[in-house]
Amino acid sequence: MNVLVFNCGSSSLKYQLLSMGEEATLLAKGLVERIGLKEGIISHKPEGKKKFESVQDIPNHGVAIDLVLKALVHPEHGVISSIKEIDAAGHRVAHGGEYFKDSALIDAKAKELIASCCELAPLHNPANLEGILSMEKLLPGIPQVAVFDTSFHQTLPPEAFMYGLPYDCYETLRVRKYGFHGTSHKFVANKACEILGWNIADKKIVSCHLGNGASVCAIDGGKSVETSMGFTPNEGLLMGTRTGNLDLGALLYIAEKKNLSIDETNKLINKQSGLAGISGISSDMRDLEIAAEGGNKRAQLALDMFAYRVKRFVGSYTASMGGVDLVIFTGGIGENDSISRAKIAGDFAYLGLDFDLEKNEGLRGKDAIISKEGSKVKAMVITTNEELVIASDTQRIVSALN
Amino acid sequence: MNVLVFNCGSSSLKYQLLSMGEEATLLAKGLVERIGLKEGIISHKPEGKKKFESVQDIPNHGVAIDLVLKALVHPEHGVISSIKEIDAAGHRVAHGGEYFKDSALIDAKAKELIASCCELAPLHNPANLEGILSMEKLLPGIPQVAVFDTSFHQTLPPEAFMYGLPYDCYETLRVRKYGFHGTSHKFVANKACEILGWNIADKKIVSCHLGNGASVCAIDGGKSVETSMGFTPNEGLLMGTRTGNLDLGALLYIAEKKNLSIDETNKLINKQSGLAGISGISSDMRDLEIAAEGGNKRAQLALDMFAYRVKRFVGSYTASMGGVDLVIFTGGIGENDSISRAKIAGDFAYLGLDFDLEKNEGLRGKDAIISKEGSKVKAMVITTNEELVIASDTQRIVSALN
Repeated sequence: MNVLVFNCGSSSLKYQLLSMGEEATLLAKGLVERIGLKEGIISHKPEGKKKFESVQDIPNHGVAIDLVLKALVHPEHGVISSIKEIDAAGHRVAHGGEYFKDSALIDAKAKELIASCCELAPLHNPANLEGILSMEKLLPGIPQVAVFDTSFHQTLPPEAFMYGLPYDCYETLRVRKYGFHGTSHKFVANKACEILGWNIADKKIVSCHLGNGASVCAIDGGKSVETSMGFTPNEGLLMGTRTGNLDLGALLYIAEKKNLSIDETNKLINKQSGLAGISGISSDMRDLEIAAEGGNKRAQLALDMFAYRVKRFVGSYTASMGGVDLVIFTGGIGENDSISRAKIAGDFAYLGLDFDLEKNEGLRGKDAIISKEGSKVKAMVITTNEELVIASDTQRIVSALN
Repeated sequence: MNVLVFNCGSSSLKYQLLSMGEEATLLAKGLVERIGLKEGIISHKPEGKKKFESVQDIPNHGVAIDLVLKALVHPEHGVISSIKEIDAAGHRVAHGGEYFKDSALIDAKAKELIASCCELAPLHNPANLEGILSMEKLLPGIPQVAVFDTSFHQTLPPEAFMYGLPYDCYETLRVRKYGFHGTSHKFVANKACEILGWNIADKKIVSCHLGNGASVCAIDGGKSVETSMGFTPNEGLLMGTRTGNLDLGALLYIAEKKNLSIDETNKLINKQSGLAGISGISSDMRDLEIAAEGGNKRAQLALDMFAYRVKRFVGSYTASMGGVDLVIFTGGIGENDSISRAKIAGDFAYLGLDFDLEKNEGLRGKDAIISKEGSKVKAMVITTNEELVIASDTQRIVSALN
């Protein structure tokens, strides 16, 4: 089964075509940028063939997807001979609210429910839905599946997902913790257990997805029981440009002193804060590490805060589960930044985590165990692959139709 | 040395007169209410004598303190024969900003700095300062000491006290984590070590002050290294009417949907949320436990959320310190509510805390060990006494003058 995977943003679109046999094989991947702006770009990377790029106006997602389909069947840089070889499409959808506890086949009802979650994810769900509708027009009859960032976390118990607000904020405004990065947390937890030969049903895992956006997830017996992003992706860890947890009174104090509107306040906490705001230099870990080595104190502070917060969450989520067997690092920082990993996981001797500084040192972008042989609690690096989860879920749900 | 201890609020004032010998002895305590309103009340409780109450207009803190002094020397319900027997006064002061790392003798400079922190604690510091100035007028020449809620937490490292905000919020607006309940956390940690025969310098302690306001503190070697209240007392745990931690995006979403001003938003998160907001019944633990027993699900949810959050913080602060030797419960809930204590501390077997359900059961308002004999990590209930800390600090600082 060939599955075409989409991750549609408001002005961009990522895609992968995967052949889902015994093992999944990537056939092609690519990126369409500047949708709706002048001079859109498609960058198409077929496996084993030369990369292809083209610049032209791309007014909407329909045109973008049409370009993708044409690239996939193109005589020179295509990887299939006809669009009939595309058996299904899988879409990353940011928000499934409380409706979707698993990935779902897209039908009229599903589209309606995804639309009703646009309010909860105004930057992402409308674009996701547009991708779905465009595919429907271009390839009618092809089954499509929505894979939600939120659905893995629908197993959180009420004491974890409810906020300390008047109850009507939940009942009428649907304000609760939803959590994000679900596809990634689910994937790396299962992958790690596979590598270790563990049955996930017996294990307690803390998964740290550390990238420009970052979240921690407590996975008990394969189920998400706690996660650090909340109603929005702002909550929890310090991120590239997001505050993470912050005293609400402090936020209101700043908004009052600086006379900020709600939009401006949202911009402050999501675009101007985090590593970038503290350091005043960059939201990128590598820039900060170079600056800190050169003696920049605010860069060092940003790095220290980042690692310290992740460490606290690992401790906190261990308490959520009453113990931990495995700590996983994934995402751009988690997979590549050995300095941060050591700062986060180096002090958990009290839990029985015997961290291996040597194995950790210099490890980049590879699945590996970074705790010592015989360590009671294990630590691992697992490279995440959200597209693969989307393709697998699509395959699973579409196969069940027949 | 006789020390008169004040805790001045905006419309009320609590006081205690203590004789500080080898052991501290309470001579009298009392409460003045409705200051600035019609029909103010003074309730005066001398030790070993009959309680005294009087209703009259009390226009300001000066009049209130004058009533207190008159009650203390009154032939019938007084406990000293002359105000000359008052050797010093100690004041609880809510906020010392970054200026006060310890309790301080009140002089012109100290008053100026306390005044400059009024902006950070607009409900409390002005009243605290008024109490100080009134005493100065009524008993000129008596040394006075300020004991700050915040000063114990001035040992937090930058990665703990800084927020993920643009750096200028710290530099120009002084927005950082200050923490509160410092006097209580310091007192119970030292008291517990005294009882256990421990040297606090070698120990890692998580102190849970659980009352209508609630906070957790990590105390490493006797120093506060992390605490859950922040720039304001809203941050951290779920409280009687405060949200505690909440996604900032959720707050802005609610403010926008309900069209709330900053004042209204502050009221929502500090007065209408927490246990009261979730349950819709009460901010009082006892009311909620009765309702939950009667099958009220929202009351049960509020109780579950409260305990779960404290549990997470205990785990988190254990990670902050890289281990824990002792968990302390104090405050109205911590001292009296065995159900909450068991829910919080019952699942830390993975840390080596062997909780003793029997010792815990029914224990109210008494210092006691509630972990089992031989438990690697200990749990204790310690009754807090903030007035005693204020009196002791006052004695220490005033004695050093001579």
